[in-house]
Amino acid sequence: MSEGAADTSAVWIEAVRWSSDGLVPAIAQDAASGRVLTLAWMNRDALAQTAATGEAHYWSRSRRRLWRKGESSGHVQKVREIRLDCDNDAILLSVEQVGGIACHTGRERCFFLRLHDGHWTDDEPVLKDPETIYGPG
Amino acid sequence: MSEGAADTSAVWIEAVRWSSDGLVPAIAQDAASGRVLTLAWMNRDALAQTAATGEAHYWSRSRRRLWRKGESSGHVQKVREIRLDCDNDAILLSVEQVGGIACHTGRERCFFLRLHDGHWTDDEPVLKDPETIYGPG
Repeated sequence: MSEGAADTSAVWIEAVRWSSDGLVPAIAQDAASGRVLTLAWMNRDALAQTAATGEAHYWSRSRRRLWRKGESSGHVQKVREIRLDCDNDAILLSVEQVGGIACHTGRERCFFLRLHDGHWTDDEPVLKDPETIYGPG
Repeated sequence: MSEGAADTSAVWIEAVRWSSDGLVPAIAQDAASGRVLTLAWMNRDALAQTAATGEAHYWSRSRRRLWRKGESSGHVQKVREIRLDCDNDAILLSVEQVGGIACHTGRERCFFLRLHDGHWTDDEPVLKDPETIYGPG
Protein backbone atom coordinates (compact mmCIF):
# COMPACT_ATOMS: atom_id res chain seq x y z
CA MET A 1 0.00 0.00 0.00
CA SER A 2 3.00 2.31 -0.39
CA GLU A 3 2.09 3.78 -3.76
CA GLY A 4 3.58 7.06 -2.47
CA ALA A 5 1.70 10.31 -2.10
CA ALA A 6 -1.77 10.60 -3.58
CA ASP A 7 -0.57 11.29 -7.11
CA THR A 8 -3.65 11.25 -9.31
CA SER A 9 -1.57 11.35 -12.50
CA ALA A 10 0.22 8.05 -11.83
CA VAL A 11 0.31 5.68 -14.80
CA TRP A 12 -1.67 3.01 -12.95
CA ILE A 13 -4.46 5.52 -12.24
CA GLU A 14 -4.50 6.66 -15.85
CA ALA A 15 -4.96 3.00 -16.84
CA VAL A 16 -8.40 3.02 -15.24
CA ARG A 17 -11.23 3.69 -17.70
CA TRP A 18 -12.99 6.48 -15.83
CA SER A 19 -16.56 7.19 -16.91
CA SER A 20 -17.52 10.51 -18.50
CA ASP A 21 -18.24 11.82 -14.99
CA GLY A 22 -14.83 10.63 -13.77
CA LEU A 23 -16.00 7.70 -11.65
CA VAL A 24 -15.78 3.91 -11.44
CA PRO A 25 -17.73 1.55 -9.18
CA ALA A 26 -15.71 0.01 -6.34
CA ILE A 27 -16.74 -3.16 -4.53
CA ALA A 28 -15.51 -3.77 -0.98
CA GLN A 29 -15.25 -7.42 0.03
CA ASP A 30 -14.43 -8.61 3.53
CA ALA A 31 -10.97 -10.19 3.38
CA ALA A 32 -11.76 -12.73 6.09
CA SER A 33 -15.34 -13.83 5.38
CA GLY A 34 -15.51 -13.10 1.65
CA ARG A 35 -18.82 -11.27 2.16
CA VAL A 36 -19.51 -8.42 -0.26
CA LEU A 37 -19.98 -5.40 2.00
CA THR A 38 -20.54 -2.31 -0.15
CA LEU A 39 -20.57 -0.88 -3.61
CA ALA A 40 -19.43 2.73 -3.72
CA TRP A 41 -17.84 5.08 -6.26
CA MET A 42 -14.30 6.31 -6.73
CA ASN A 43 -12.81 9.19 -8.65
CA ARG A 44 -9.07 9.51 -9.32
CA ASP A 45 -8.44 11.17 -6.00
CA ALA A 46 -10.37 8.53 -4.02
CA LEU A 47 -8.39 5.73 -5.63
CA ALA A 48 -5.09 7.56 -5.14
CA GLN A 49 -5.87 8.24 -1.47
CA THR A 50 -6.97 4.62 -0.97
CA ALA A 51 -3.67 3.34 -2.34
CA ALA A 52 -1.56 5.92 -0.50
CA THR A 53 -3.18 5.53 2.93
CA GLY A 54 -4.35 1.90 2.89
CA GLU A 55 -7.83 3.04 3.95
CA ALA A 56 -10.79 3.04 1.58
CA HIS A 57 -11.77 6.45 0.21
CA TYR A 58 -14.77 7.02 -2.03
CA TRP A 59 -16.51 9.80 -3.90
CA SER A 60 -19.90 10.61 -2.44
CA ARG A 61 -22.21 11.29 -5.39
CA SER A 62 -24.91 12.75 -3.14
CA ARG A 63 -22.62 15.04 -1.12
CA ARG A 64 -20.24 15.62 -4.05
CA ARG A 65 -17.10 15.23 -2.00
CA LEU A 66 -14.28 12.84 -1.19
CA TRP A 67 -15.15 10.62 1.71
CA ARG A 68 -12.91 8.49 3.87
CA LYS A 69 -15.01 5.43 4.77
CA GLY A 70 -15.49 5.49 8.55
CA GLU A 71 -14.62 9.17 9.01
CA SER A 72 -17.81 9.68 11.06
CA SER A 73 -18.60 6.16 12.24
CA GLY A 74 -15.09 4.88 12.92
CA HIS A 75 -15.97 1.95 10.64
CA VAL A 76 -12.84 2.28 8.55
CA GLN A 77 -12.03 -0.20 5.78
CA LYS A 78 -8.37 -1.25 5.92
CA VAL A 79 -7.40 -2.21 2.40
CA ARG A 80 -5.49 -5.46 1.86
CA GLU A 81 -5.68 -5.59 -1.92
CA ILE A 82 -6.81 -3.39 -4.82
CA ARG A 83 -7.96 -5.10 -8.03
CA LEU A 84 -9.10 -3.92 -11.45
CA ASP A 85 -11.24 -5.83 -13.92
CA CYS A 86 -10.61 -6.87 -17.52
CA ASP A 87 -12.34 -3.76 -18.91
CA ASN A 88 -10.39 -1.50 -16.54
CA ASP A 89 -13.61 0.06 -15.33
CA ALA A 90 -14.43 -1.60 -11.99
CA ILE A 91 -12.41 -1.86 -8.76
CA LEU A 92 -12.48 -4.66 -6.18
CA LEU A 93 -11.09 -3.97 -2.71
CA SER A 94 -10.30 -6.70 -0.22
CA VAL A 95 -10.75 -5.06 3.18
CA GLU A 96 -10.65 -5.56 6.89
CA GLN A 97 -13.89 -3.94 8.08
CA VAL A 98 -13.20 -2.21 11.40
CA GLY A 99 -16.10 -2.70 13.83
CA GLY A 100 -17.63 -5.38 11.61
CA ILE A 101 -20.18 -2.85 10.31
CA ALA A 102 -19.99 -1.46 6.77
CA CYS A 103 -23.52 -0.09 6.35
CA HIS A 104 -24.83 3.24 7.64
CA THR A 105 -27.93 1.36 8.83
CA GLY A 106 -25.78 -0.44 11.42
CA ARG A 107 -25.76 -3.73 9.54
CA GLU A 108 -22.67 -5.73 8.62
CA ARG A 109 -23.16 -4.87 4.96
CA CYS A 110 -25.32 -2.88 2.60
CA PHE A 111 -26.77 -5.86 0.70
CA PHE A 112 -29.35 -6.83 3.32
CA LEU A 113 -32.34 -6.90 0.95
CA ARG A 114 -33.02 -10.24 -0.72
CA LEU A 115 -35.54 -10.80 -3.48
CA HIS A 116 -38.05 -13.33 -2.23
CA ASP A 117 -41.46 -14.04 -3.78
CA GLY A 118 -41.46 -10.75 -5.64
CA HIS A 119 -40.50 -8.63 -2.63
CA TRP A 120 -37.27 -7.20 -1.26
CA THR A 121 -36.95 -8.80 2.17
CA ASP A 122 -34.61 -7.49 4.86
CA ASP A 123 -32.92 -10.63 6.16
CA GLU A 124 -29.85 -9.34 8.02
CA PRO A 125 -29.78 -7.90 11.54
CA VAL A 126 -28.98 -4.35 12.68
CA LEU A 127 -25.89 -4.87 14.84
CA LYS A 128 -25.76 -1.35 16.21
CA ASP A 129 -28.33 1.47 16.34
CA PRO A 130 -27.27 4.14 13.81
CA GLU A 131 -27.98 6.79 16.45
CA THR A 132 -25.31 5.17 18.63
CA ILE A 133 -22.91 5.19 15.67
CA TYR A 134 -23.51 8.71 14.37
CA GLY A 135 -25.20 10.46 17.27
CA PRO A 136 -28.76 11.85 17.20
CA GLY A 137 -29.94 13.90 14.22
CA MET B 1 -36.67 -17.59 -8.90
CA SER B 2 -40.30 -17.83 -9.95
CA GLU B 3 -41.03 -14.11 -10.16
CA GLY B 4 -43.24 -14.92 -13.15
CA ALA B 5 -42.81 -13.53 -16.64
CA ALA B 6 -40.31 -10.75 -17.23
CA ASP B 7 -42.61 -7.96 -16.08
CA THR B 8 -40.49 -4.81 -15.98
CA SER B 9 -43.22 -2.84 -14.21
CA ALA B 10 -43.29 -5.07 -11.12
CA VAL B 11 -43.22 -3.18 -7.83
CA TRP B 12 -39.91 -4.75 -6.78
CA ILE B 13 -38.29 -3.55 -10.02
CA GLU B 14 -39.69 -0.06 -9.56
CA ALA B 15 -38.08 -0.05 -6.08
CA VAL B 16 -34.63 -0.05 -7.69
CA ARG B 17 -33.11 3.41 -8.05
CA TRP B 18 -32.19 3.28 -11.72
CA SER B 19 -29.63 5.85 -12.88
CA SER B 20 -30.57 8.56 -15.38
CA ASP B 21 -29.50 6.15 -18.14
CA GLY B 22 -31.67 3.41 -16.68
CA LEU B 23 -28.91 1.18 -15.30
CA VAL B 24 -27.51 -0.15 -12.03
CA PRO B 25 -24.24 -2.01 -11.42
CA ALA B 26 -24.62 -5.72 -10.68
CA ILE B 27 -21.96 -7.79 -8.92
CA ALA B 28 -21.82 -11.55 -9.51
CA GLN B 29 -20.31 -13.56 -6.68
CA ASP B 30 -19.59 -17.29 -6.84
CA ALA B 31 -22.04 -18.97 -4.46
CA ALA B 32 -19.59 -21.75 -3.55
CA SER B 33 -16.21 -19.99 -3.29
CA GLY B 34 -17.37 -16.47 -2.44
CA ARG B 35 -15.08 -15.07 -5.16
CA VAL B 36 -16.27 -11.88 -6.84
CA LEU B 37 -16.45 -12.81 -10.52
CA THR B 38 -17.78 -9.85 -12.49
CA LEU B 39 -19.28 -6.41 -12.34
CA ALA B 40 -21.74 -5.75 -15.13
CA TRP B 41 -24.77 -3.51 -15.71
CA MET B 42 -28.49 -4.18 -15.64
CA ASN B 43 -31.47 -2.29 -16.96
CA ARG B 44 -35.05 -3.11 -15.94
CA ASP B 45 -35.37 -5.79 -18.57
CA ALA B 46 -32.08 -7.47 -17.61
CA LEU B 47 -33.13 -7.66 -13.96
CA ALA B 48 -36.62 -8.90 -14.85
CA GLN B 49 -35.20 -11.60 -17.16
CA THR B 50 -32.67 -12.61 -14.51
CA ALA B 51 -35.40 -13.10 -11.93
CA ALA B 52 -37.78 -14.82 -14.36
CA THR B 53 -35.27 -17.27 -15.84
CA GLY B 54 -32.80 -17.81 -12.98
CA GLU B 55 -29.93 -17.00 -15.35
CA ALA B 56 -27.99 -13.73 -15.21
CA HIS B 57 -28.88 -11.20 -17.89
CA TYR B 58 -27.09 -7.89 -18.29
CA TRP B 59 -27.18 -4.78 -20.43
CA SER B 60 -24.14 -4.45 -22.64
CA ARG B 61 -23.20 -0.78 -22.67
CA SER B 62 -20.81 -1.25 -25.61
CA ARG B 63 -23.18 -3.28 -27.78
CA ARG B 64 -26.30 -1.52 -26.47
CA ARG B 65 -28.32 -4.68 -26.12
CA LEU B 66 -29.61 -7.17 -23.58
CA TRP B 67 -27.16 -9.97 -23.06
CA ARG B 68 -27.68 -13.37 -21.47
CA LYS B 69 -24.40 -14.18 -19.77
CA GLY B 70 -22.96 -17.25 -21.47
CA GLU B 71 -25.07 -16.96 -24.63
CA SER B 72 -21.91 -17.33 -26.78
CA SER B 73 -19.49 -19.03 -24.40
CA GLY B 74 -21.87 -21.38 -22.60
CA HIS B 75 -20.56 -19.88 -19.36
CA VAL B 76 -24.00 -19.21 -17.94
CA GLN B 77 -24.47 -17.82 -14.43
CA LYS B 78 -27.21 -19.70 -12.57
CA VAL B 79 -28.62 -17.30 -10.04
CA ARG B 80 -29.13 -18.52 -6.48
CA GLU B 81 -29.95 -15.17 -4.87
CA ILE B 82 -30.64 -11.57 -5.91
CA ARG B 83 -29.81 -8.80 -3.43
CA LEU B 84 -30.23 -5.03 -3.38
CA ASP B 85 -28.25 -2.56 -1.29
CA CYS B 86 -29.37 0.04 1.26
CA ASP B 87 -29.49 2.82 -1.35
CA ASN B 88 -31.46 0.60 -3.76
CA ASP B 89 -28.92 1.28 -6.50
CA ALA B 90 -26.65 -1.77 -6.62
CA ILE B 91 -27.40 -5.46 -7.16
CA LEU B 92 -25.54 -8.48 -5.79
CA LEU B 93 -26.08 -11.86 -7.43
CA SER B 94 -25.01 -15.11 -5.85
CA VAL B 95 -24.33 -17.44 -8.79
CA GLU B 96 -23.21 -20.85 -9.84
CA GLN B 97 -20.70 -20.13 -12.62
CA VAL B 98 -21.09 -22.82 -15.28
CA GLY B 99 -17.71 -23.92 -16.64
CA GLY B 100 -15.90 -22.11 -13.82
CA ILE B 101 -15.03 -19.25 -16.18
CA ALA B 102 -16.72 -15.85 -15.90
CA CYS B 103 -14.30 -13.68 -17.90
CA HIS B 104 -14.14 -13.34 -21.67
CA THR B 105 -10.34 -13.66 -21.36
CA GLY B 106 -10.80 -17.29 -20.27
CA ARG B 107 -10.01 -16.59 -16.63
CA GLU B 108 -12.17 -17.59 -13.67
CA ARG B 109 -13.08 -13.97 -13.07
CA CYS B 110 -12.62 -10.47 -14.43
CA PHE B 111 -10.69 -9.09 -11.44
CA PHE B 112 -7.31 -10.62 -12.36
CA LEU B 113 -5.32 -7.37 -12.15
CA ARG B 114 -3.84 -6.59 -8.74
CA LEU B 115 -2.16 -3.32 -7.83
CA HIS B 116 1.40 -4.12 -6.82
CA ASP B 117 4.24 -1.61 -6.51
CA GLY B 118 2.40 0.95 -8.61
CA HIS B 119 1.54 -1.47 -11.42
CA TRP B 120 -1.49 -3.56 -12.35
CA THR B 121 -0.20 -7.13 -12.27
CA ASP B 122 -2.04 -10.05 -13.87
CA ASP B 123 -1.89 -12.74 -11.19
CA GLU B 124 -4.59 -15.22 -12.23
CA PRO B 125 -4.29 -17.91 -14.90
CA VAL B 126 -6.08 -18.23 -18.24
CA LEU B 127 -8.00 -21.48 -17.82
CA LYS B 128 -9.13 -21.76 -21.43
CA ASP B 129 -7.98 -20.04 -24.62
CA PRO B 130 -10.67 -17.50 -25.64
CA GLU B 131 -10.38 -18.77 -29.22
CA THR B 132 -11.49 -22.20 -27.96
CA ILE B 133 -14.40 -20.58 -26.12
CA TYR B 134 -15.63 -18.20 -28.82
CA GLY B 135 -14.07 -19.57 -31.99
CA PRO B 136 -11.48 -17.73 -34.14
CA GLY B 137 -12.04 -14.08 -35.10
